[in-house]
Amino acid sequence: MLNKSKLSGEGGMMQLPGFPLVLVVVKENIITIAAFSFYSFKPPMVMVGIVPSRYSFELIQSSEDFTINIPTEDLLPAIKICGSKSGRDVNKWTEANLTPEKSDEVSSLIIQECPVNLECKKTEKIPLKGTHVWFVGEIVLAHVQEGYERSKALLYWPREYRRVGEVI
Amino acid sequence: MLNKSKLSGEGGMMQLPGFPLVLVVVKENIITIAAFSFYSFKPPMVMVGIVPSRYSFELIQSSEDFTINIPTEDLLPAIKICGSKSGRDVNKWTEANLTPEKSDEVSSLIIQECPVNLECKKTEKIPLKGTHVWFVGEIVLAHVQEGYERSKALLYWPREYRRVGEVI
Repeated sequence: MLNKSKLSGEGGMMQLPGFPLVLVVVKENIITIAAFSFYSFKPPMVMVGIVPSRYSFELIQSSEDFTINIPTEDLLPAIKICGSKSGRDVNKWTEANLTPEKSDEVSSLIIQECPVNLECKKTEKIPLKGTHVWFVGEIVLAHVQEGYERSKALLYWPREYRRVGEVI
Repeated sequence: MLNKSKLSGEGGMMQLPGFPLVLVVVKENIITIAAFSFYSFKPPMVMVGIVPSRYSFELIQSSEDFTINIPTEDLLPAIKICGSKSGRDVNKWTEANLTPEKSDEVSSLIIQECPVNLECKKTEKIPLKGTHVWFVGEIVLAHVQEGYERSKALLYWPREYRRVGEVI
């Protein structure tokens, strides 16, 4: 029998394993997000949670789309810049040394250096309250580096960046 | 410049890194789920996505709560049983050799063998369509094994079970 302590809900939340770390581009701005999840398989939909004080929140409210870009460990400096600076103050592409590319199906840009780019049409805003507001989008096109493996992706949870571990 | 191929939305979805694998207990039944995410920090809320054909979907519709139980690698046989068999047909506790314990604050049970148990009050059903329907709950109490580390948790994405990797 395991020896357990009781913690508050906030304390419990901190025990979660970590969530996929993605760079979300809304229009021309980049934001680093771990509030990211799968939503539905058919149609293929994902969701992102954004804090309303962020510049990307303003942008996504009026955007018809966004892109999900999966970074690798070599992009950690860029990940940190895109998660801490505001697009209100700086151009994150130049600040983080990332290269914008046009998407095929949506207006938001994709990040050349990321091995996976998912072009998403925004479909819904989840009408619930909380520190994050979640937006759902349908993946309409993906760009994937040849030979890409999921194990190259990263996880994040306060305040640790982790690798995705091996298959068991 | 990376050499990328274009894939459909479904193909893009398969490139996601993996999501936290949890055992969700609704009332007295267990279901293995990777459609699990953080929802909000204050109050501390999480969400689970359940396919409507599953027995747990019937249960959660009429339940006021659920529990999230984080399993470790030694529980992989139990994880597979709770993800493949239906609580309509079998008692998963005996089938998977798991021990039910009463929660303190909610009516759904917790799993003794899991080092982390989160008691959650169901707060909302997300009113959107898709293969999964998502339910949001507030974590009202957590039970955490002393010395527990996030690196003991697992990830899942079709059809791979993975470890949570090391901190970078």
